[in-house]
Amino acid sequence: MKNLKKQVGIEAAKYVKDGMILGLGTGSTASFFVEEVARRVREEKLSLTAVTTSSVTQAQAESLGITISSLDSIDFIDLTVDGVDEFDPDLAGIKGGGGALLMEKIVANISKDYIWIADESKQVDQLGHFPLPVEVVQFGAELLFKKFKQKGYQPSWRLNFEEEKFITDQKHFIIDLHLGKIDNAQRLAFELDQTIGVVEHGLFINMAKHVIISGENGIKVFEK
Amino acid sequence: MKNLKKQVGIEAAKYVKDGMILGLGTGSTASFFVEEVARRVREEKLSLTAVTTSSVTQAQAESLGITISSLDSIDFIDLTVDGVDEFDPDLAGIKGGGGALLMEKIVANISKDYIWIADESKQVDQLGHFPLPVEVVQFGAELLFKKFKQKGYQPSWRLNFEEEKFITDQKHFIIDLHLGKIDNAQRLAFELDQTIGVVEHGLFINMAKHVIISGENGIKVFEK
Repeated sequence: MKNLKKQVGIEAAKYVKDGMILGLGTGSTASFFVEEVARRVREEKLSLTAVTTSSVTQAQAESLGITISSLDSIDFIDLTVDGVDEFDPDLAGIKGGGGALLMEKIVANISKDYIWIADESKQVDQLGHFPLPVEVVQFGAELLFKKFKQKGYQPSWRLNFEEEKFITDQKHFIIDLHLGKIDNAQRLAFELDQTIGVVEHGLFINMAKHVIISGENGIKVFEK
Repeated sequence: MKNLKKQVGIEAAKYVKDGMILGLGTGSTASFFVEEVARRVREEKLSLTAVTTSSVTQAQAESLGITISSLDSIDFIDLTVDGVDEFDPDLAGIKGGGGALLMEKIVANISKDYIWIADESKQVDQLGHFPLPVEVVQFGAELLFKKFKQKGYQPSWRLNFEEEKFITDQKHFIIDLHLGKIDNAQRLAFELDQTIGVVEHGLFINMAKHVIISGENGIKVFEK
């Protein structure tokens, strides 16, 4: 599995060109992409500006010598490469397993090209087996949790290593919805967007332009 | 003006009954309501539990001896009384002049009865003269500001006394939109709800059940 993730991270780094403003995703697969970008910067003397999607990726990129820029100082991103927890035939996906969905979505939203990378296990016919992360305001979060429970969404709190509620980089909680399957992702996204107290959710619809997966039979690219 | 605000704060406190769970709004008008509630608790020995909508109101209520509860420990609120910056004939309104719109909306959303109090100057035919506050995630906020500018929404940053960006109790920024008039509040609310990076906005539609205003000719109550 680790090799498949690494393969696809290296493959995605081929899309990176000299002079680009790059968005760096978060998670185990994205981290291989970041590693490979750093190698190319070092060995091919690429000049890049990068924006990160979490404090974790920021630390990794800095340690590898990639020049990091604040999102506030740029107007757009040329290319963002990120992992995905599940994607369907329409290239709609669930993200947020790593807890960075809000910043990942903000970065994706201003990217001209946006690529997901994954091992083949992330490809599904229907979304929802992977728990859907919902980033919520801390104030009133218990009530929101109860509301999700009443709706049958089978919520659970995202916890940190100390078994306390995980706090995102933007100081919110995450509630994971164990839905089993999502019949209408667009409608659920709409409902969550309207819900008071919800900051953002892990449904990424009509955002990814390519998905690159690696499996037993090599690399495969899906395009939208 | 101060007298009108005080009058209507006292009037709204008549809706408070012994044993209620109460939501306490934020702002100059709401603060007169909180004062009057505190007087009734003291003199009439009312037993109340109160939830506040900001750190400012929390400090005021505590100093007046009102028992404060965390939102996490209750399931609903009997009555919330809050101010409003502008309201129209449908009792749709703009809130957030005091910077507490997010917590105010969360509290309003779980209140069985929700009353706005205001002096008569807040009554308008069409919303939008008062700048519409939009609470946004800090990460990527400059890009959102530019986007609002491109759309012609005439944004300005909410600043604190030190002329730095104001940070809300939930650690977000506020961008005020100077729209002049809002032709379709429902559509704008929908658009902002869908906007990545927007946590909440100051349009409160179909929320207030009563509005109590005070003017030269006394008290007037609007019902929905």
